[in-house]
Amino acid sequence: MTLFSDLPTVRYEGEGSTNPLAYRFYDPDKIVLGKPLKEHLRLTVCYWHSFVMNGTDPFGAPTIIRPWMGGNDPMAAARAKADAAFDLFRVLDVPLYSFHDRDVAPEGATLAETLKNTRTMGDYLAEKQQATGLKLLWGTANLFSHPRFMAGAATNPDPDVFAWSAATVKTALDVTHALGGANYVMWGGREGYETLLNTDLKRELDQMGRFLSLVVDYKHKIGFSGPILIEPKPKEPTKHQYDFDAATVYGFLKHFGLEKDVKLNLEENHALLAGHTFEHEIAVAQAFGILGSLDINRGDPLLGWDTDQFPNDVPQLTLALYEVIKGGGLTTGGLNFDAKIRRQSIEPDDLVHAHVGGIDVCAKAFLQAAKLFEEGRLTAQMRERYAGWDKPDHAASGATLEDIAAAAESRAVSPRPRSGRQEMLENVVSRL
Amino acid sequence: MTLFSDLPTVRYEGEGSTNPLAYRFYDPDKIVLGKPLKEHLRLTVCYWHSFVMNGTDPFGAPTIIRPWMGGNDPMAAARAKADAAFDLFRVLDVPLYSFHDRDVAPEGATLAETLKNTRTMGDYLAEKQQATGLKLLWGTANLFSHPRFMAGAATNPDPDVFAWSAATVKTALDVTHALGGANYVMWGGREGYETLLNTDLKRELDQMGRFLSLVVDYKHKIGFSGPILIEPKPKEPTKHQYDFDAATVYGFLKHFGLEKDVKLNLEENHALLAGHTFEHEIAVAQAFGILGSLDINRGDPLLGWDTDQFPNDVPQLTLALYEVIKGGGLTTGGLNFDAKIRRQSIEPDDLVHAHVGGIDVCAKAFLQAAKLFEEGRLTAQMRERYAGWDKPDHAASGATLEDIAAAAESRAVSPRPRSGRQEMLENVVSRL
Amino acid sequence: MTLFSDLPTVRYEGEGSTNPLAYRFYDPDKIVLGKPLKEHLRLTVCYWHSFVMNGTDPFGAPTIIRPWMGGNDPMAAARAKADAAFDLFRVLDVPLYSFHDRDVAPEGATLAETLKNTRTMGDYLAEKQQATGLKLLWGTANLFSHPRFMAGAATNPDPDVFAWSAATVKTALDVTHALGGANYVMWGGREGYETLLNTDLKRELDQMGRFLSLVVDYKHKIGFSGPILIEPKPKEPTKHQYDFDAATVYGFLKHFGLEKDVKLNLEENHALLAGHTFEHEIAVAQAFGILGSLDINRGDPLLGWDTDQFPNDVPQLTLALYEVIKGGGLTTGGLNFDAKIRRQSIEPDDLVHAHVGGIDVCAKAFLQAAKLFEEGRLTAQMRERYAGWDKPDHAASGATLEDIAAAAESRAVSPRPRSGRQEMLENVVSRL
Amino acid sequence: MTLFSDLPTVRYEGEGSTNPLAYRFYDPDKIVLGKPLKEHLRLTVCYWHSFVMNGTDPFGAPTIIRPWMGGNDPMAAARAKADAAFDLFRVLDVPLYSFHDRDVAPEGATLAETLKNTRTMGDYLAEKQQATGLKLLWGTANLFSHPRFMAGAATNPDPDVFAWSAATVKTALDVTHALGGANYVMWGGREGYETLLNTDLKRELDQMGRFLSLVVDYKHKIGFSGPILIEPKPKEPTKHQYDFDAATVYGFLKHFGLEKDVKLNLEENHALLAGHTFEHEIAVAQAFGILGSLDINRGDPLLGWDTDQFPNDVPQLTLALYEVIKGGGLTTGGLNFDAKIRRQSIEPDDLVHAHVGGIDVCAKAFLQAAKLFEEGRLTAQMRERYAGWDKPDHAASGATLEDIAAAAESRAVSPRPRSGRQEMLENVVSRL
Repeated sequence: MTLFSDLPTVRYEGEGSTNPLAYRFYDPDKIVLGKPLKEHLRLTVCYWHSFVMNGTDPFGAPTIIRPWMGGNDPMAAARAKADAAFDLFRVLDVPLYSFHDRDVAPEGATLAETLKNTRTMGDYLAEKQQATGLKLLWGTANLFSHPRFMAGAATNPDPDVFAWSAATVKTALDVTHALGGANYVMWGGREGYETLLNTDLKRELDQMGRFLSLVVDYKHKIGFSGPILIEPKPKEPTKHQYDFDAATVYGFLKHFGLEKDVKLNLEENHALLAGHTFEHEIAVAQAFGILGSLDINRGDPLLGWDTDQFPNDVPQLTLALYEVIKGGGLTTGGLNFDAKIRRQSIEPDDLVHAHVGGIDVCAKAFLQAAKLFEEGRLTAQMRERYAGWDKPDHAASGATLEDIAAAAESRAVSPRPRSGRQEMLENVVSRL
Repeated sequence: MTLFSDLPTVRYEGEGSTNPLAYRFYDPDKIVLGKPLKEHLRLTVCYWHSFVMNGTDPFGAPTIIRPWMGGNDPMAAARAKADAAFDLFRVLDVPLYSFHDRDVAPEGATLAETLKNTRTMGDYLAEKQQATGLKLLWGTANLFSHPRFMAGAATNPDPDVFAWSAATVKTALDVTHALGGANYVMWGGREGYETLLNTDLKRELDQMGRFLSLVVDYKHKIGFSGPILIEPKPKEPTKHQYDFDAATVYGFLKHFGLEKDVKLNLEENHALLAGHTFEHEIAVAQAFGILGSLDINRGDPLLGWDTDQFPNDVPQLTLALYEVIKGGGLTTGGLNFDAKIRRQSIEPDDLVHAHVGGIDVCAKAFLQAAKLFEEGRLTAQMRERYAGWDKPDHAASGATLEDIAAAAESRAVSPRPRSGRQEMLENVVSRL
Repeated sequence: MTLFSDLPTVRYEGEGSTNPLAYRFYDPDKIVLGKPLKEHLRLTVCYWHSFVMNGTDPFGAPTIIRPWMGGNDPMAAARAKADAAFDLFRVLDVPLYSFHDRDVAPEGATLAETLKNTRTMGDYLAEKQQATGLKLLWGTANLFSHPRFMAGAATNPDPDVFAWSAATVKTALDVTHALGGANYVMWGGREGYETLLNTDLKRELDQMGRFLSLVVDYKHKIGFSGPILIEPKPKEPTKHQYDFDAATVYGFLKHFGLEKDVKLNLEENHALLAGHTFEHEIAVAQAFGILGSLDINRGDPLLGWDTDQFPNDVPQLTLALYEVIKGGGLTTGGLNFDAKIRRQSIEPDDLVHAHVGGIDVCAKAFLQAAKLFEEGRLTAQMRERYAGWDKPDHAASGATLEDIAAAAESRAVSPRPRSGRQEMLENVVSRL
Repeated sequence: MTLFSDLPTVRYEGEGSTNPLAYRFYDPDKIVLGKPLKEHLRLTVCYWHSFVMNGTDPFGAPTIIRPWMGGNDPMAAARAKADAAFDLFRVLDVPLYSFHDRDVAPEGATLAETLKNTRTMGDYLAEKQQATGLKLLWGTANLFSHPRFMAGAATNPDPDVFAWSAATVKTALDVTHALGGANYVMWGGREGYETLLNTDLKRELDQMGRFLSLVVDYKHKIGFSGPILIEPKPKEPTKHQYDFDAATVYGFLKHFGLEKDVKLNLEENHALLAGHTFEHEIAVAQAFGILGSLDINRGDPLLGWDTDQFPNDVPQLTLALYEVIKGGGLTTGGLNFDAKIRRQSIEPDDLVHAHVGGIDVCAKAFLQAAKLFEEGRLTAQMRERYAGWDKPDHAASGATLEDIAAAAESRAVSPRPRSGRQEMLENVVSRL
């Protein structure tokens, strides 16, 4: 018996349903843009927010108490947590999940015991996957919660922490590989700084580049075919996180020659903290060919920290998923609910309500984005706007600056402003 | 007679002076870190804020009216403006200035006439430089004020605007070269977007990359030896400016293979708008070898737009200049006052007060940063903090991830957190 | 003939319509919550953004050129502008409009001539209202654009500016009264400061309080029955605007004993700049009994200035209008489109598209908010949440702190946390 | 023996000292503006940040481990903590301290036991005060950490929490009174909301007003002569805190008629989160006569949460303390270091360095502010700026709006803009 054993699986009942625990838009097998909705969305529930988060915040103690928290046998608790997790996955009818090593397996007394715990729980998860058909979107390693990481993992001034991190990532990647994970994620955690007064920024970037190169080499060696995904975030917990945003990570990857092997796991709330829209980050990643996967949540633009709320704004998510569709959709990636219930949402079914709402928001947003794409009005407008560039012999395509300059002068160009049509295009979206 | 003819040149009078129009810290010939202060600072007055800006804002009409504004003979006005400008340079005793083409020469009726105006005024400025010994820090082209640029210059959907821009930059670079300019700057202006609904981001980045490549080729062809400088800014006037920050521009340069020829002109207020400190942007630019020059001003962290105020916070600027000194100082770059007097500061001598205060703040901050560097306490602490990495046979320097992991496990590493000493180091700075 | 003469009036065609210039949700006569939709919404087009704004921004020249701009006869231009305005009102089928004195009548050579212009154009507008049946939501005076107001109007250090402002507001209120305006608005414009170094904050608040008291007295004297509305804004154009937000203005009104005569005109973008949601500002105004009217637009949470964009986010506006409905709806107020087309939207029909989209967004949001209100699920949940307070003899209703404390101790209260149900309630909204 | 027993008391050694643990500016007995510096500053060390905070953050476990944390005997630990605290007070040579009830005494198994713990530790603190001469700036109650407060204290939907809070505040106020506390503080903690969907804002404000009224009544009853201080904060932990900023609290106090008995405890970091400068909040509080005390720390304008860092920016604090001096200084209030060392500052002496730096920054800023005040240049400029208002028969002082309007028209006023002199005045400050 788990907290969720008594709950039936949530089913699609159509837009007219008033059942709060039914899907009104998420019809998994509905064919959209040529394939089932579930294969587009690749919905994923994450372990940490749903099974580890206890409602603590900087001003208060835990409020969310679960049976698997505390106790004297951490490994037994880890198994109980896994049982409850897979039960919730069943209730929500999602095909994928994701985890940090520390979410699924407890820290041991030593490095060796800690790694052993990870491997042991990996075996247990393999059994659960086998029994349920669930798949792993990605695994990752928690290199930020323990005090040893307080000054970073790969970027730590202490090389022993680099070494500890190497051992930890190796094991987490091994386990992810064994579980058939589609991707392996690296979130920068505490790779950043609090003050430049004690930080050698260049040295730390070099350490981080070296660490990532080692992981990429190892991935090839063991035949892990999925991409390594870096998850950008601009700040929090550190004042400055090195993986600030998509464009920053792209520059970093180019600097170390890793742009072929590493892609991005983008999150809406992290985009917001960096001063970007989610669709911007997606468009940038696609422009540079490094879009990997998406962490779906929402932030609060009026709050300056990562609130990781469940998505509930269909128009906003529609714009993001429209960019994804335009770029050809996700391949190894998915929509991972990196979202946590609020500190006051202490009942187990709050977790279910949160996911059901979030899943339906994703489904509705995707359906609207697909409609937008199929209607083609935005694309047509875009084509027309840049049509001048399609004329083959235009001076602007001349060879040198001075050629173009001379041609412009001789042609006496006198460009006339044309309307950008922003409101008309926004109406196309808001009328969906 | 200009507005500033009657004003004597501002002189260094030492810290005890109570003369509001004297320097208390800027002693140009004082030897610091082996050379005169003026050669470290390379103070520069900019044309646009000081001679073009008229106090208009989104809610109000011009308040700052100068003799060279308006009138029926734009070229005569341009000469009068140049006369006043060089007079202010004399009053302030600065060695350098900077301009946009449109600051010094009026738009003409056609492209050809506009370019001719630029060249004509270039000749006039050459005479003034000759007569005064003043030098040009950099020139640039205004590709954002005229309506033709409302949807961008190089990134415009209309190739005629690209062509116009090419002709304009070619001429501005020619004139900068002829005037012995130490650098040529490109600020992204309206290279960005208002909404992705009408914007092909990848195409626009490609256009921007092509344009920059053309400029770099032309610079080599004419033998312009200074660097091309890109000035990052994250937003304003557009919702998203492509040259968001130092890290973004680095990625862009790497993408187009331009990182050897192009450097950065960093501005404090732009750093702030991007969510960075000025010292962060400097440290990033130095880590990637692309620091060029600095626009000195300050923003208001409580306001979300570019306020371009004169600097007045010595501790803040000290941290920025300390990073500059650590990285070896500026070479072709300088400290350019990209700062404007407030809309209510309508008297000509407000302009003098503003610069005198700003110059003294720069001088004091540099002297403090130099002292910090010479004392070496921060450097010593930094060396000690990363000392673990200097041990030659440490496991962390092993060849592969699995080597390091195995060594960490066999050595049973158990890293102990060490204090980052942030407050103690902050005291070193605040005690200066 | 005006710019809009050829355009037919926009009509309701229902949700299935694909006509971009039809209403899909705004069915003016549809009965909702007991009265026609148009009487709930009281849609209002504003003069300044739609007929005065020319696309200039801090980095660029005007892009939006209309026939009534420029010319040698300002009064003739003002009449042409009014003709075009009333034509657009007809096209959009809205019942109300709003203006600043300077939007409808030009500045004259003297105070007397300026006031006369206002009165003359007031007569012209009266004729247009008569001819069309349109009504005036509110009038206001522009006390911020002219350089004389650069240091404030009522709060200006120069008492002559206070006097000028008094004369201007008196005339604007006279004209508003003559036109049957339902309210009179005062936006703080430049009532604020750039730096406390030159500002006597207490004195300026006192001047502002005195000015408002004079206006309230005059309103009573002339029998203007509508409320005076203050429009809060936290910053821009000044660094700090005295009418920061709803709560600040309430304190100001209480301080000067004006809370019975003065209400608020709230704007979404201003709420955002103050760090609030629109629904928050509405709830605060209602809690203190001072909700007056609403300026409908949207800001960009990623930009730090007043973008005044047309609304396009139905979920967001639904929450705001739900608060309005809960509080009993608007009385003299309306939904005023204080929104401007983007600088690149230079075609006249961009203005039409913008309003049609905005009106439909308002209508859809109101219909959803009404449904939410009628369903009553949120209200029921709210009642249940606070139900403990309804028990008559509960200790918490005891008379003194020590009584309650003693009762709590003797009863050994041990309150158990209850779920706030946030996600479940958010789903109620997102499922609309 | 405590952690700080071996440390000598920090002494003033003058500006030339290079001893990092000496004061260079804080000369307690130096006479400034007519009384000793220590009586102006009333420096206060706070219990929670220095003795309770353990370095945990939303992404990581505790890093700062002290002897009095953990263990089986909470009251013994509380005494050990008090011993260490008073030892640090001795080392720093400060005259005052401050605490929450839960900082000094542990939660018990019941309400009664919890209150008893508070009283018992109150007695212990009384002994320590007696032995050392230290005084209490203020006490307060922690009504936010325990899960029972997750939905607020006075504003909780559960009246039992209101009752619990009443009992807790009564006891904390009793203890504060017994210890001779100069003020009693109420920080809103979780008095605010996460979402309006489950919140009755008006009801909660009424509950909060009632609670505060009860406390004020009780204060009078027991003869507590110091003021009750409310500490404004705009957000965090809740999305919206009801005590948003100084102006908001003033309106709240006026609404409930409490503005005579309640004053403000202002904090720089909270001001920043509300979009204000610290000097603004001070000026507002003084304008309304409700300035009480100051929490001295600094926030990071680039981070959106309460970082509570030690102050290190002298120019910034100078502006704040200049406002304090202009308004006549603090009376019952003081400068309370509501500041915490960084998570990586894990050594006990980091706490000492942090305070020594902070104290010196306060001292230097106060000395500069006093100099600014004594020089009188800003005051003179201010007087001259508003001088027009001093003329007795000026039209602007006429009785009614129409009188002033008529006079303005008949006098044909034509106000001429005058420079605000901002840069010149900023130089006066930056030259200190």
